[in-house]
Amino acid sequence: MARLVEVDDAADPRLADYRDLRDVGLRRSLEAEHGLFLAEGEKVVRRAVEAGYPPRSFLMAPRWLDGLADVLATSDAPCFVVSESLAEEVTGFHVHRGALASLRRLPLPALDEVLREARTVVVLEDLVDHTNVGAVVRNAAALGVDAVLLAPRCADPLYRRAVKVAMGAVFAMPWTRLSDWYDALPSLSARGFTTVALSLAEDSEDLEAAVAGVDRLALVLGGEGHGLSERWTDTADRRARIAMSRGVEVGVDSLNAAAAAAVACYVARARSAGA
Amino acid sequence: MARLVEVDDAADPRLADYRDLRDVGLRRSLEAEHGLFLAEGEKVVRRAVEAGYPPRSFLMAPRWLDGLADVLATSDAPCFVVSESLAEEVTGFHVHRGALASLRRLPLPALDEVLREARTVVVLEDLVDHTNVGAVVRNAAALGVDAVLLAPRCADPLYRRAVKVAMGAVFAMPWTRLSDWYDALPSLSARGFTTVALSLAEDSEDLEAAVAGVDRLALVLGGEGHGLSERWTDTADRRARIAMSRGVEVGVDSLNAAAAAAVACYVARARSAGA
Repeated sequence: MARLVEVDDAADPRLADYRDLRDVGLRRSLEAEHGLFLAEGEKVVRRAVEAGYPPRSFLMAPRWLDGLADVLATSDAPCFVVSESLAEEVTGFHVHRGALASLRRLPLPALDEVLREARTVVVLEDLVDHTNVGAVVRNAAALGVDAVLLAPRCADPLYRRAVKVAMGAVFAMPWTRLSDWYDALPSLSARGFTTVALSLAEDSEDLEAAVAGVDRLALVLGGEGHGLSERWTDTADRRARIAMSRGVEVGVDSLNAAAAAAVACYVARARSAGA
Repeated sequence: MARLVEVDDAADPRLADYRDLRDVGLRRSLEAEHGLFLAEGEKVVRRAVEAGYPPRSFLMAPRWLDGLADVLATSDAPCFVVSESLAEEVTGFHVHRGALASLRRLPLPALDEVLREARTVVVLEDLVDHTNVGAVVRNAAALGVDAVLLAPRCADPLYRRAVKVAMGAVFAMPWTRLSDWYDALPSLSARGFTTVALSLAEDSEDLEAAVAGVDRLALVLGGEGHGLSERWTDTADRRARIAMSRGVEVGVDSLNAAAAAAVACYVARARSAGA
């Protein structure tokens, strides 16, 4: 059972994990240094703990204790009980969903482990917005993708905002970080995946044609704005596009990153079986 | 040619249109009262003016004048030339993209006018997040949707953040507001559209089956979180769903609003021709 610890001083050093949650720069260094991440809201806190992430501590107003009693019962971590105004003072914003937890990150799984049973994976190059990374993981999970691989510069899926947008899907979806950006796609091809890059390259074929009959498929998506690097575009086995309509007319010729990923996952799921 | 007016006092009343752009409540009342909206960034300002919205004024740092010279040449409105720090002081944030314009709203077109040539329309019930409304309009434009109809409580597509996310597609995409929420869907059916509501209702069929053979199609989408109202669910001609995978396993059983809309538009575009 988590120890309930009432705290009434916003400067209490035991609340350090929860400080200034809106300061992205500060949070990045603090979370990396201490190997922690934050979960927000009863549902997400519950999913994080159930997925096996060890809690460092909890922080909540008294009225949230009951809803999470069973989760608190499984942990020896302290649960800091604070007023809502104190929670706001520490975190820097109004904590709508009441409960917060600080959890320990786990070592990322090896690439081969993540790929072992996977038939369809999504590979993200430089998606730098936490909201987009969270949305891609959520939508990929809903559309049957087996794993997500992130290039070194992709935003952190365990950043609070990504976790929230993903509704906790980042805890259940197998994912890992690719350490070698340069040869990332050839190394997937060598493991038996057909890498299909979403790209407006001249030789891009229609996405449905590109994935037809592919057994193990890696859908490769670029970042916001600039799309895929030349290196990744060139080293993918195939380049494909989602055909646009009226793009020229309205001056918009692409879907936003999360929507493109969702449509691509939808098309991938419907692909005909491999030979 | 727009008159260039140098301003060096953040309190200058002529800058009233540009105040506190991050204060959603204030902006809503100010913009409604004066019938204005804001465009941000050279590309978006250009598209707004080219789409026929009359500028009330422009505001920019000197270095943005050249890039917009041809747009300024078409207008008699004042162009307030300010330092970047003064722009930040007035608007409340760092104006990355330099140029801002305040434009006059135009009367919304009548429903029949918007529908006249349309074969595929998207109908949004209570999508309240400006980012989501902007993303839906952008993705709908890219995927060949002819018009977007908004229920009374939907967020404003001309709010600065929606305009930005839509990359200006809100200027080119025909859209209007539905004045009658209660009978919105029957009135579309009466105009020859088959209304297909995305819904997890018990009688929801697969979306691809639901749109097959439909000539004039209205895709009906609900808001974030709660989805469609009972009234709209019941009064749609058909209810349909995007089949999810592994939803139960990871605790996520739906796409986010913008992604669901993109997938639905993609499926609608590929539908077989009507009888």
